[in-house]
Amino acid sequence: MSRIDTIIKAPHMYTMAGDGLGYMDSAAVAIDSGRILAVGPVADIEAAYQPEQTLEMEHHLLLPGFVDGHMHTSCNILRGLAQDTDNWMMNGLQPFDNAATQEERDAGSRLAIIEAIQAGTTTLGDYDHDMDAVCAFIAKVGARGNIAQTVRSAKHQVYKPGELYVFDTDQGEQSLARNIALYKKWHGHDGGRIRVLFGPQGADFMDTTLLQRCKDEAKKRGTRVHIHLQQGSRELAQMEMRYGMRTVAFLEQTHYLDENFIVVHLTSCEEDEVRAVAKTGAGMVVCPGSIAIIDGLVCPSMAFQQAGGACGLGSDQAPGNNCHNIINEMKNVALFNKIMRADPEVMPAWAALRMATIEGARAIGLGGEIGSLEAGKKADLIAVDLNYPSMQPVFTHPMRNMVPNLVYSARGREVALSMVDGRVIMRDGVVLGADAADCLRAVAAYPDGIGARAEKEFFAINGTNAQYMRNDQL
Amino acid sequence: MSRIDTIIKAPHMYTMAGDGLGYMDSAAVAIDSGRILAVGPVADIEAAYQPEQTLEMEHHLLLPGFVDGHMHTSCNILRGLAQDTDNWMMNGLQPFDNAATQEERDAGSRLAIIEAIQAGTTTLGDYDHDMDAVCAFIAKVGARGNIAQTVRSAKHQVYKPGELYVFDTDQGEQSLARNIALYKKWHGHDGGRIRVLFGPQGADFMDTTLLQRCKDEAKKRGTRVHIHLQQGSRELAQMEMRYGMRTVAFLEQTHYLDENFIVVHLTSCEEDEVRAVAKTGAGMVVCPGSIAIIDGLVCPSMAFQQAGGACGLGSDQAPGNNCHNIINEMKNVALFNKIMRADPEVMPAWAALRMATIEGARAIGLGGEIGSLEAGKKADLIAVDLNYPSMQPVFTHPMRNMVPNLVYSARGREVALSMVDGRVIMRDGVVLGADAADCLRAVAAYPDGIGARAEKEFFAINGTNAQYMRNDQL
Repeated sequence: MSRIDTIIKAPHMYTMAGDGLGYMDSAAVAIDSGRILAVGPVADIEAAYQPEQTLEMEHHLLLPGFVDGHMHTSCNILRGLAQDTDNWMMNGLQPFDNAATQEERDAGSRLAIIEAIQAGTTTLGDYDHDMDAVCAFIAKVGARGNIAQTVRSAKHQVYKPGELYVFDTDQGEQSLARNIALYKKWHGHDGGRIRVLFGPQGADFMDTTLLQRCKDEAKKRGTRVHIHLQQGSRELAQMEMRYGMRTVAFLEQTHYLDENFIVVHLTSCEEDEVRAVAKTGAGMVVCPGSIAIIDGLVCPSMAFQQAGGACGLGSDQAPGNNCHNIINEMKNVALFNKIMRADPEVMPAWAALRMATIEGARAIGLGGEIGSLEAGKKADLIAVDLNYPSMQPVFTHPMRNMVPNLVYSARGREVALSMVDGRVIMRDGVVLGADAADCLRAVAAYPDGIGARAEKEFFAINGTNAQYMRNDQL
Repeated sequence: MSRIDTIIKAPHMYTMAGDGLGYMDSAAVAIDSGRILAVGPVADIEAAYQPEQTLEMEHHLLLPGFVDGHMHTSCNILRGLAQDTDNWMMNGLQPFDNAATQEERDAGSRLAIIEAIQAGTTTLGDYDHDMDAVCAFIAKVGARGNIAQTVRSAKHQVYKPGELYVFDTDQGEQSLARNIALYKKWHGHDGGRIRVLFGPQGADFMDTTLLQRCKDEAKKRGTRVHIHLQQGSRELAQMEMRYGMRTVAFLEQTHYLDENFIVVHLTSCEEDEVRAVAKTGAGMVVCPGSIAIIDGLVCPSMAFQQAGGACGLGSDQAPGNNCHNIINEMKNVALFNKIMRADPEVMPAWAALRMATIEGARAIGLGGEIGSLEAGKKADLIAVDLNYPSMQPVFTHPMRNMVPNLVYSARGREVALSMVDGRVIMRDGVVLGADAADCLRAVAAYPDGIGARAEKEFFAINGTNAQYMRNDQL
């Protein structure tokens, strides 16, 4: 018998191996040095391996940890301040976004990361301007980070409608230099648990030299590019004013996209544009809840998948989603696509679960390492407690109902254990590497200051939320 | 100082008085003999009343308990067995619905009621064939019940597409007699905490005499009628075959609907039909999650409201929703209407919260008794703990973000206390009048039997879920 670190066993397991869900009953996973050695019936695994510890998940189902492909946790300090409004960025987010400091953002990020881990996310695809503290916190709590830092040459944060962004090439180069510095500091940390990507904000936000430099730097360093793609009328107006064409056409012309890209949203893509992007081999991330709240739209993830592309799920940002919970996004992507097609058969539960796990892993270029429970992969997994009203009763015959209930009924607290690289990082809601109470206290200190700094601009803009405040509707 | 039962106080309160949300800070509610005596600043309330007990909710917001206007908790024993399929009733639910016994259904109901209460529901609008045990359990746990029992003369549970339902008038009269017996046994229980309605299943399911008898019996007894209305092509086909017109036109002709009706779904109504129904004074209940899953549709609640009608929210049934959680339905109704209109400003958070509270209370004819925290109303309220990542940070200036975060971010476990008629019925997730662990154990005993009885029909129908079982997609 081989001596190994851990055996984890449960009455039900979804490995996500193959094209379906890879269901097994009375199953166990053998784990050593952070990787899965074997997956199989409890008796076989226990006969072959002698573990240091055995984790008995007696009324649970095991499955791969969830992949959140696109988040802006640094906006979490502004949770709930920017929904129910047209022109979300300018009429909703802007006054608060201008007011928040990096210290405040970092405190918000920590809470968002805790929220995500508590609901089963093991890989966090986080993206913003200054990601050093986020990398440090993800390193500390033991989660997997897939981190991009914003690169852009657009000089100002906000422009008036119709105004062409002014590019500052020095500022652009500096932002790229900071992305490279982040890469050097954090990429490959702890055996690759943190991976740093390059983060051009969007084709509209930067000059063509800088856009190409992002791709070249990523390629040279063996990492990927994470970019917002054809998101909304604002981007399209910029691209048409500057280049006389839409973003997808512009990027096709220069053969910019390839299999090293993670493209996000595609909000304003026609189906032929979606197919063109899918054919490049890029992976897509869709953020259903966020785009429903901030734009009232459903992004074309199904068209992307039908064209052969891999698409994962993202929670985006808390001012305009307003939460970081992949179970919620599984339900959203399924229900939104059903109602957009008036067809209850599209986007069934199993397809949503694949998006949250193996397909999401492939979309971000980690399909060989995570997203399924198979020998050789990293041991990133979660155990979902079935002893909750939301998951009961459990049927196994003639059909199993656990995945439909996970996708359509579970709320997040059912996730009882979370493991990354073979190490338990969350147990019964407690993120072991963090003091959640302390993180809660920390964010509570900031709203007064942010509010005071944002007040004048908030009322000057006079968006729907300012009106709602006056009308006792908030 | 008057001696009273209870003062409950919190840093934030939404009374739902007036047309907005009725926000107050540092507020308290004075409660005696199950009713609210006064609502106001903590100092004023404490100066005027001397309570037996003071409930200090130090980091919470108080608001009226949620009203779930339409549930079929007796289907909860079949949670997760009937989604992702066309023709939900015949291809999904039927084999399991035929197999479940009343004992099994009652066990499932108990768990659904616990699930709903844990997430802040205080009024349960439950509806099914045999509601005695549900009334007993709701009476025991101390919640408010708004209970309808099915009345129908359609002889069989299931018909083939295109087949006209056969009416059995004796069976119809017997079902009405059982509804009357339920009324006599439970209506008015505990000072009116349980209210029994009349439950004609739908205009297609019964002869015109029985339909009228339901209305007359309800009127005579001072209660209401709860009816599914123009739900789907199956109902429309029956009405057109039998009467040569659609349900709404048929009911208009006989002036059937009035302000004593609770009408549910209106799935297949055109806008002029919705307006016609709203004008009768009937209240509507919409079940967003259920109808998205079982039909891929969004019901016309906004058109009903625009025509002046009151519309509440319902969780419907667990095989095809798959959960009983009004916070989930608030998010669903807001997001679904935004994406159906491609407009992020429609159905803001405050409007969804009104549907879950005061508007929902009005829709079921209890607007004078519950749904807001105002002097004279019954003391049905909840306290939401703000010390969760989903609710943090809390901004109060220049805008409050608590309601947007409750609607778009909270998951249910944030509800820390629930009170009905001035009595605490749930605290920190524990439903005080029930043994949740025992209820969980009870439902776990039934799936093997139900599955064995359903198996043959399940595979004979060969719906999508049978295919998914064969393909390792469940």
